[in-house]
Amino acid sequence: MNDHWFMQRALDLAAAMEGQTSPNPMVGAVVVKDGRIVGTGAHMGAGGNHAEVHALQMAEGRTSGATMYVTLEPCNHHGRTPPCTKKIIEAGITRVVVAVKDVNPEVAGSGIEALRDAGVETEVGVLEEKAGKLNAAFFHFVQTSKPYVTVKTASTLNGAMTSPKGLSPWITGEAALEEVHQLRHSNDAILVGVETVLNDNPSLTTRLEIEGRNPIRVVLDRHLRTPGDARLVADGKAPTWIFTEESPESNHASVLEQKGARVISMSTVTAKSVLTELGRADIQTVLVEGGQTIISSFIAENEIQRYISYVAPKLFSADAANTELEVEHAQMVGGDIKITATPKKGDASCSQG
Amino acid sequence: MNDHWFMQRALDLAAAMEGQTSPNPMVGAVVVKDGRIVGTGAHMGAGGNHAEVHALQMAEGRTSGATMYVTLEPCNHHGRTPPCTKKIIEAGITRVVVAVKDVNPEVAGSGIEALRDAGVETEVGVLEEKAGKLNAAFFHFVQTSKPYVTVKTASTLNGAMTSPKGLSPWITGEAALEEVHQLRHSNDAILVGVETVLNDNPSLTTRLEIEGRNPIRVVLDRHLRTPGDARLVADGKAPTWIFTEESPESNHASVLEQKGARVISMSTVTAKSVLTELGRADIQTVLVEGGQTIISSFIAENEIQRYISYVAPKLFSADAANTELEVEHAQMVGGDIKITATPKKGDASCSQG
Repeated sequence: MNDHWFMQRALDLAAAMEGQTSPNPMVGAVVVKDGRIVGTGAHMGAGGNHAEVHALQMAEGRTSGATMYVTLEPCNHHGRTPPCTKKIIEAGITRVVVAVKDVNPEVAGSGIEALRDAGVETEVGVLEEKAGKLNAAFFHFVQTSKPYVTVKTASTLNGAMTSPKGLSPWITGEAALEEVHQLRHSNDAILVGVETVLNDNPSLTTRLEIEGRNPIRVVLDRHLRTPGDARLVADGKAPTWIFTEESPESNHASVLEQKGARVISMSTVTAKSVLTELGRADIQTVLVEGGQTIISSFIAENEIQRYISYVAPKLFSADAANTELEVEHAQMVGGDIKITATPKKGDASCSQG
Repeated sequence: MNDHWFMQRALDLAAAMEGQTSPNPMVGAVVVKDGRIVGTGAHMGAGGNHAEVHALQMAEGRTSGATMYVTLEPCNHHGRTPPCTKKIIEAGITRVVVAVKDVNPEVAGSGIEALRDAGVETEVGVLEEKAGKLNAAFFHFVQTSKPYVTVKTASTLNGAMTSPKGLSPWITGEAALEEVHQLRHSNDAILVGVETVLNDNPSLTTRLEIEGRNPIRVVLDRHLRTPGDARLVADGKAPTWIFTEESPESNHASVLEQKGARVISMSTVTAKSVLTELGRADIQTVLVEGGQTIISSFIAENEIQRYISYVAPKLFSADAANTELEVEHAQMVGGDIKITATPKKGDASCSQG
């Protein structure tokens, strides 16, 4: 066991809280005395204790001379809770290992400074890249005041993104669908274009075995064409915000507002203008689920932080023929992904003996 | 070591000849005496010795009482060479392990029967699936009289298959490009639609460090729009066959024929009609390189045996913006492939601290 090993435990603790800490970052902490873990903690959500506090409480009576591993620089300011640096020092911790510095201007190095000033040996940068990735969305938000954007697409091997009529509208299989609901749970908002609303009438809720969190539903709808009886307006299952270039005083805007949607008018609806507005509302993460026009505008405005593509081993032709394949290999070739697929055994198109 | 281990050696020998045995299958053979390999062989191309003969020659003097591992059922008929079964029996081999039965009606079980009739202990089915895949194209051709069709596509993560103007026309990186040339080398023909000829003017030759084989270039061109000065007509580097619904007596047909192309007229140019014609010309493998219309017709007619998709971690928007990403994970989720990519470090769109 070494610093990396203990820090990985702290990162695992932090990561278990994915989707429930926003607008706070995910943080995990481990207290180690004489080579044994004596306390563990994670931040479980805004208003709750910081990870360091949970870990110190669990380790009570064994913290003197101990080492603390924490995935993010401890806070040094009075927020909703007293500063963690003070509690760490008072507990008699003599060494603190930090994965990554906070970028929040209220912390930004001052936590580390406070610990060192109090004579606590403090190291920074153990598993720094992993810790940075874990809270990529939080760091992005703090630095840009705009939410972290994940684009998710599902397509067939030959690039079709919508199912031919008569086939299931879901292109991918069950496991991928479940992941998508998990993704919804871990995002503050889910965003689509009005074409998706008109074509698919989706509810955009999180459907998981154990109830997940429903993100705010955001529709980009320049000409305010979202119907009053659209599922995501009428079902009342989560807030729905409609960004439009139409007047908020129009008749249709009133109808939508009466149904419970929020209509937000702006002179130009762009990826950037909408993200800025969502950032002001403390929305840190947005999942963009399509369609192609919306995704294309996010690409053009360079507003994508992560792209998740699900590729189903199927082929849809222009005239709605459908061939089911199975993946034989999926591998990296240089920086590209190579997918080799062959017709499913027993399929008419497979004639190997 | 066991039967699987020795058969794998025979399969490796066979696979090394990829691209040079057509219209014959790839076959490898290993002779084992007292647990040691005493002879190895592979079929290296039409007119040359069969794998079994090479292996028996190398093992000369040590074949009596030995075991032979061979990836395909030995032939029992007089073709260009005498039957292998006879040579195996004469050499005193007492046990033969075969991976897969031949489907060629001239062999189809008779090789195994001949060995057993001569008292040689004969087993069939060791690494059968691998051996079947190795010669999938050959088996397909023998059973259907049509070539084995591989479709190859290259696209960005958001499904774009052509580069915006001003960018390199190659969507994927160098390693993937090299694989594509390897693919061309191992196919008898390469097929595109006339739109690809008109838009890209490709030469469709095999460009590898060590000279590869140039496949026959096939163009599907119903209205005979291939220009006389198209690279694949004018460069004379490989035969070019143009399938059309126009009359072979037309002026433009004569022009193309004078340049060295072969113009083949048929009442309807479909995937099936063209493949049937190619099969008659003993073409066993075809690589379809696009475009979308051609691929769509192959899907609709259910004429695809393998689909290879290269996905570059890039995003092209409708207005030609280009975002370079890098793949963070590529993994299977159920039967689907999931690709997660994030902006390249240092890219403007990446703002993680």
